[in-house]
Amino acid sequence: VSIATSPLSEILTRIHHDLAGLDRGEIADYIPELSRANPDSFGIAIATVDGHVFGVGDAELPFTIQSISKPLVFGMALEARGDESVLDRVGVEPSGNAFNSITVDAETNRPFNPMVNAGAIVSTALVGGSDPAGDRDRMLEQLSRFAGRPLIVDEAVYRSEKESGDRNRAIAWLMSSFGMIDGDVEAAVDLYFAQCSVLVSCRDLALIGATLANDGIHPVTCERALRAEHVTKVLSVMATCGMYDNAGAWMYNVGLPAKSGVAGGVLAVLPGQLGVGVFSPPLDPRGNSVRGTAVCERLSRDLQLHLLARGSGVQSVVRRVLRGDELRSNRLRTLAEDDAIASARSKIGLFELQGQLYFATAERAHREIADRLGGTEYVLIDLTRVSSIDEPALAVLDGLAESLIATGRTLLAVLDDPHSGWAAKLPPTVLTFPDTDTALEWCEDRLVESGPALAPDRARWPFGQLDLLEGLEPPELAAVAAAAEVRGFDAGATVLRAGDPAREVCFLLEGRVSVLLPLGDSPGGPARRLASFGPGLAFGELALLSGEVRSADVVCEEMSTVAFVSIEILESLAGPYPGLRSRIEANLVRLLSRRLRTANAQVRALAR
Amino acid sequence: VSIATSPLSEILTRIHHDLAGLDRGEIADYIPELSRANPDSFGIAIATVDGHVFGVGDAELPFTIQSISKPLVFGMALEARGDESVLDRVGVEPSGNAFNSITVDAETNRPFNPMVNAGAIVSTALVGGSDPAGDRDRMLEQLSRFAGRPLIVDEAVYRSEKESGDRNRAIAWLMSSFGMIDGDVEAAVDLYFAQCSVLVSCRDLALIGATLANDGIHPVTCERALRAEHVTKVLSVMATCGMYDNAGAWMYNVGLPAKSGVAGGVLAVLPGQLGVGVFSPPLDPRGNSVRGTAVCERLSRDLQLHLLARGSGVQSVVRRVLRGDELRSNRLRTLAEDDAIASARSKIGLFELQGQLYFATAERAHREIADRLGGTEYVLIDLTRVSSIDEPALAVLDGLAESLIATGRTLLAVLDDPHSGWAAKLPPTVLTFPDTDTALEWCEDRLVESGPALAPDRARWPFGQLDLLEGLEPPELAAVAAAAEVRGFDAGATVLRAGDPAREVCFLLEGRVSVLLPLGDSPGGPARRLASFGPGLAFGELALLSGEVRSADVVCEEMSTVAFVSIEILESLAGPYPGLRSRIEANLVRLLSRRLRTANAQVRALAR
Repeated sequence: VSIATSPLSEILTRIHHDLAGLDRGEIADYIPELSRANPDSFGIAIATVDGHVFGVGDAELPFTIQSISKPLVFGMALEARGDESVLDRVGVEPSGNAFNSITVDAETNRPFNPMVNAGAIVSTALVGGSDPAGDRDRMLEQLSRFAGRPLIVDEAVYRSEKESGDRNRAIAWLMSSFGMIDGDVEAAVDLYFAQCSVLVSCRDLALIGATLANDGIHPVTCERALRAEHVTKVLSVMATCGMYDNAGAWMYNVGLPAKSGVAGGVLAVLPGQLGVGVFSPPLDPRGNSVRGTAVCERLSRDLQLHLLARGSGVQSVVRRVLRGDELRSNRLRTLAEDDAIASARSKIGLFELQGQLYFATAERAHREIADRLGGTEYVLIDLTRVSSIDEPALAVLDGLAESLIATGRTLLAVLDDPHSGWAAKLPPTVLTFPDTDTALEWCEDRLVESGPALAPDRARWPFGQLDLLEGLEPPELAAVAAAAEVRGFDAGATVLRAGDPAREVCFLLEGRVSVLLPLGDSPGGPARRLASFGPGLAFGELALLSGEVRSADVVCEEMSTVAFVSIEILESLAGPYPGLRSRIEANLVRLLSRRLRTANAQVRALAR
Repeated sequence: VSIATSPLSEILTRIHHDLAGLDRGEIADYIPELSRANPDSFGIAIATVDGHVFGVGDAELPFTIQSISKPLVFGMALEARGDESVLDRVGVEPSGNAFNSITVDAETNRPFNPMVNAGAIVSTALVGGSDPAGDRDRMLEQLSRFAGRPLIVDEAVYRSEKESGDRNRAIAWLMSSFGMIDGDVEAAVDLYFAQCSVLVSCRDLALIGATLANDGIHPVTCERALRAEHVTKVLSVMATCGMYDNAGAWMYNVGLPAKSGVAGGVLAVLPGQLGVGVFSPPLDPRGNSVRGTAVCERLSRDLQLHLLARGSGVQSVVRRVLRGDELRSNRLRTLAEDDAIASARSKIGLFELQGQLYFATAERAHREIADRLGGTEYVLIDLTRVSSIDEPALAVLDGLAESLIATGRTLLAVLDDPHSGWAAKLPPTVLTFPDTDTALEWCEDRLVESGPALAPDRARWPFGQLDLLEGLEPPELAAVAAAAEVRGFDAGATVLRAGDPAREVCFLLEGRVSVLLPLGDSPGGPARRLASFGPGLAFGELALLSGEVRSADVVCEEMSTVAFVSIEILESLAGPYPGLRSRIEANLVRLLSRRLRTANAQVRALAR
């Protein structure tokens, strides 16, 4: 039985139901086309930054975008002309004046901001060029990228705008007289009328909002509509000037950067989280949709979406800290090696990071890592769960890397792809690994190297130093050695195959092998690496029990030499050496018990 | 060798060095005391929401807070009088006028906002009462709570303010004439002068900012200075009206709610992250500290602190999803039980949540849990790593709980304290557990119950059904049973003690025991529970190897019956039953191998 994947549908339905009865407000009538709108039309949609869209009521009904196009076109102007040259011609201060005010900043002659018509027409002129038809196509194409689908112009509204657009024409000519518009003034006003007449639905507005909330990348198409730094600028002017001369109260009560349109649309954005689109034609005296405002107030209050309400405090991005004695690589070692490095394992520290690294989280991670270093000499930082990292966070990581290395520590970074993006910007002294296991194994190898010499001084591991044969008398050892069939394998060769009957105990005398659990039925197919080991280790020991089959493949990682001791022969040795078999079995019980204790300790550490 | 715990000191030092040479601006001279400030004084401090403070330059130098007191006193007014009655007397719209403007909203006669002097004096009047001396103490006490240390008034500046305060007196009387001030006008202006003359340092401002960033709770003293909903309101007026008539450009360029003071202080806040305090007396023509503005612009750019830059996207709060076949409780079971529930284990799903649950993260968690439910019948939600949860998130969890239960699933919540705070608000149908292990065990018990009857139909577990004695011939079984010493234990009694020589294999015939690893040397002291089990399980089996000692305590959880089989007697049975010992050892190897495989699989699942 499946359950609803999100509570949002239900929440929107409730709010829509509660506010449908709110019938104050007047439909805009400054152009005839708009006055024909149905006052009862009412839709709400929300889109999340991970691309889920929820709608209720007339969420798919098309209406003209009107002034909601202004912040988007301002963003396009920034993209086309750069911040400085745009700000030479449009200010970013709230004016306290009506949207169609014809006043400008007395000092600079700039329109106050891009949300009043004067500033919007200047923005449009900065986007357009000398090719009216091409300009309109490009404008539509860019607006469509915000919505994630091809948008079109409502030609009837466009004609109506054009016919009743004298005041906007006057504003445009005044801007031209002030030197704020360079090119063809009529073409600029025309492009402005077209941009206002683009048809959108609440769903489109929600996705446009989610695109702004998502750093400028459309959450479904994954196409970039605007560069991230320009998104911040667009949201800034929406926050201070988006709701006409109601900006202060809007920030106070709703706290979401927003823009309304005279057709009844409202777009609101919660950066990093979601976009909201509302449509309801009746407007309040300031020109904002009455129900649109009410929906945003309600959403902000019920869901605590206010930008300046906490909600997004600094999470610790340090997911887990483990020492080398709590988590080991899946490299099996001889008892002597294990004992030799046991006390040194705590020199390895694994710090798993997760989530988004920006300055505050990176600074906190720096602090947590520095505080918990203790005697760590090998610092493993696992970044595979980090979803994003910005420049300031990268600088923090760089600084951490430098001071770790300067204090004689070794820094290892675990990265999904050590060659891409910011990973490539890590200082060259940082060692990179594709997974924690290989990084841990590398550290353990250093510990073994820096300890006493443990491996025998011969090419082939001697039978007398095999853990499984510990405590055997010299004649017993000699008998086992004599019974062993020693075979060489190339790298990649399979020594044991899962499912085969287990008739021999194996000893690795040279080389290196992996224990692989096949994930499918086909031999040589995908497999999970359970363990790896070098000379001195026994494998396939469960052959000592009767009737067992091999539980995994054993494959050579390099050229290897394996001694096979058949169980039949081992049983035949019971006559001359009655204690032999039981001594081997006791060793096996000890080895298994020890590994079980280690594994259980790891489970406890990892379950934290 | 220790390393610096944070890169912030270095960053602040660099910025301080770079901007110390910026010597534009004029020192305020409207009161004689301020004009004596040293133009070269320059301090910066940052405080994080987890209470770390970093300062550079004159970060500890005291100066008067001036207008930076305005948003704090506005907050106090909200706290004292409630939102509605405050908004009847002060607006929240940016005015575009100078801070000492005497104009008011023509429609309502309210001053435009609490950041201009008129609105600030009205706020102060709303905080004060009929007891001037007591009012000043209370004001100081409340401001001190923001700073986390006792603040005092600079009496010389206070007198100077009072002597040159005619314009503010005029404003106050005008506010009184409009009915915005009810009480003693002179007392209100006097309190206003005192509030402006409070001495603070950059460090204080940073901590005041961090208190606002931290939901109103001082990050070091952990005392609440302001209720969370009023913090949001205070930050809102700072965002739209905080930097005089430069609010739009400030939001555009810096993007942090902020307030400046005429003595040269600047307070900036990044909600959820940090507070910034800067001091440098020379002011720009708008009355904002030149270096203060430059520092904030630089911090915002270098560290990407802009409120409307992404940074705080929706993190997945689902830390890990595990199935009951990947993670099991540490309850050991008989082979028969284990096999019976093996295929049913995947009905158990464990969802570990972490971090801050607010609407967007809770909605996403809801979606992820719903998407990954599959055939899960027992839904365990581990909330022990959740750091905060707000009302909308709680509503989302409630809705999830209801639909899980409505679809016939069982919902188990793992909570640190099932009786406190929001935990108590969970629907009563949700079962709560103190840790994952006991919750998992509860689910496994239900799986065992709903399977075929496995336990023998007798009070005491029969020897013939013990896994370790599997495959023994009836006479062998009878011999072992005859050799066993059966003893009863009370709840809490110790059956085996760590460190004792291992001379007997034990079988639990009735009751329930725990395996405890002592964490110290004292018997009965703190211990880690490694496992627990019921009748049918053997323990202390390593006695079968010679020379072993007990590795852990075994303690009865309830009245229990244990059969002890001494190794000596077992060896004496080798004569009549030569295969006995080796069969038991083979069983032991099988059991250990099986447990090792399970443990290794858990390590792999948990290391994800």
